[in-house]
Amino acid sequence: MESAGTVGDLGEEGLLRLIAERSPDPVSGELWAGDDAAVVRLPTGGVLVTTDFVVEGVDFDLRYSSGADIGWKAVAINASDIAAMGGTPTRSLASAALPPETPARFFESLLDGLQDASSTWEAPLVGGDLGRAEAIMVSVTMLGSLTGEPVPRSGAEPGDAICVTGSLGGSAGGLLALRHGLGGSEAIRGLISRHLRPWARVREAQALRPFGPHAMIDISDGFALDLKRMLASSGVGCEVDGSTLPLASGLEEVCAAAGDGSDPLGLALSGGDDYELLFTVGADDVEGAIEACGEVGTPVTVVGRVVSGRVRLDGRPLSEREELGWDHLRNR
Amino acid sequence: MESAGTVGDLGEEGLLRLIAERSPDPVSGELWAGDDAAVVRLPTGGVLVTTDFVVEGVDFDLRYSSGADIGWKAVAINASDIAAMGGTPTRSLASAALPPETPARFFESLLDGLQDASSTWEAPLVGGDLGRAEAIMVSVTMLGSLTGEPVPRSGAEPGDAICVTGSLGGSAGGLLALRHGLGGSEAIRGLISRHLRPWARVREAQALRPFGPHAMIDISDGFALDLKRMLASSGVGCEVDGSTLPLASGLEEVCAAAGDGSDPLGLALSGGDDYELLFTVGADDVEGAIEACGEVGTPVTVVGRVVSGRVRLDGRPLSEREELGWDHLRNR
Repeated sequence: MESAGTVGDLGEEGLLRLIAERSPDPVSGELWAGDDAAVVRLPTGGVLVTTDFVVEGVDFDLRYSSGADIGWKAVAINASDIAAMGGTPTRSLASAALPPETPARFFESLLDGLQDASSTWEAPLVGGDLGRAEAIMVSVTMLGSLTGEPVPRSGAEPGDAICVTGSLGGSAGGLLALRHGLGGSEAIRGLISRHLRPWARVREAQALRPFGPHAMIDISDGFALDLKRMLASSGVGCEVDGSTLPLASGLEEVCAAAGDGSDPLGLALSGGDDYELLFTVGADDVEGAIEACGEVGTPVTVVGRVVSGRVRLDGRPLSEREELGWDHLRNR
Repeated sequence: MESAGTVGDLGEEGLLRLIAERSPDPVSGELWAGDDAAVVRLPTGGVLVTTDFVVEGVDFDLRYSSGADIGWKAVAINASDIAAMGGTPTRSLASAALPPETPARFFESLLDGLQDASSTWEAPLVGGDLGRAEAIMVSVTMLGSLTGEPVPRSGAEPGDAICVTGSLGGSAGGLLALRHGLGGSEAIRGLISRHLRPWARVREAQALRPFGPHAMIDISDGFALDLKRMLASSGVGCEVDGSTLPLASGLEEVCAAAGDGSDPLGLALSGGDDYELLFTVGADDVEGAIEACGEVGTPVTVVGRVVSGRVRLDGRPLSEREELGWDHLRNR
């Protein structure tokens, strides 16, 4: 049932009732929301834990995103981090800071998005926190399980192939379409969906495990910046061929229609929020990795190779310009 | 070294360097900050997980709280939740949303408070997230280990003694002192410290375990409200004798000096942020529980007993008034 009124009318107790109505029953032997802390029982072995938050006006725009979109995104970006370590999501916590004048319907929509995404990635919500703030903030923490060793950022070795799942620039293209009021074609609607409902490559990360990726990172802040991070962490460089980058379908179309100087390659290099997996594998494992991801429906593209020198794109050092990628705090 | 400039000048990479400078080395076999997710290895058995955030202007006031106070509090309130389940803190994650114009010195002070508190409760920081926002928000997630069964809110039984650690109203008294510019006496400075640097009763919770508390909650939103929550969750009532409530030292003095109608019993009943443990034990275990907490330096007071009827204070039903305790979102 949809609630009338605002979050402030309902108060914390009212919101907790709405949460309870939407919460699945705890797994046997566990204790979820409703106490001081949740009790979970995880497989023995490594436990992965990550947290990411989104803030109104910075990470989402209420003109474009529904509550359900925001809840979905907050979960998906954490699932993507778990995937990028080679793990599997297991449990989530979600916190929301809300202005009291927020419509209760928005809160319910947010809950639906959180539940929908946490159910999609099989990481049920077991707790969280509620509070007030001037702008909406949603923070998710996710636990994951790990069989064997984690796949770190730091393991890339000279000679490795550099691979990326899916396509690049889609989320930035979708945001461009939203800002320019574009949405006519199916390709552009696909880009908008990429932006509003990012997808975490959990199945792909599992499919890759038998082929032992040496290093992996999820592309959250733009291909170029996350590539530099992974290689810097590994102490190596690369040669990347820009013409091989898998541009998201519709990117040419949306850039032409926007007419604001945005170019497809720029969005693919620097657009954030793609949540594709960027990884390196030994040359012998490339074919296997491509085939394994293909079996779960996702293409993998080889975009370059790891070398012992610098990070180079099309033979030139990859720009050190600050605007390359997304620094969450730097003054712009 | 203290940094000049602002958070926006430093950018995310600069802030990550400041964090790295202050971070202890990971425990062997674990992987902490610097990758997509942290890897931790926990004792087998139940894993506790909780999250709580604080927001500028709601949970703290920058006129009174330093960055270090805020970081300390964000960790302490989570450690208190782990304690209230009968567990022991093990690892923490901390996220901060900051306006870009925040002084870098404030960020360093915040980090110091986070590190200080997470070291105090032996729950090292293993990860987190950074982002921008209009108002400062600090969110902490804490993992805890659990030996044996958790102590839920829902286990209180008629005949149990209702006990509380330490004293009540201290944090509210400290805030009152800050708002009225009071601070002359040692007692009042003690209250202010209670407000700015809350203490989690982790050792006390461990000391209580052999005496099998039936139900336990930490007092974060006021004694009366958290008592009602615990007993409602247990499906029982109580008789509480208001004259037995352990008022914080200096509370009379600060109320008299403030002269704004605040009264000590009111602050003890409804003031938030005390972070004392409120628990019930069988009549045979009361003496043992008192003695065990005494051994770690903390008094325990019996304030009433659990009955099968309603929640009563001094023979009268405890008010259902909304202003009793702290609802984080309700319009006031």
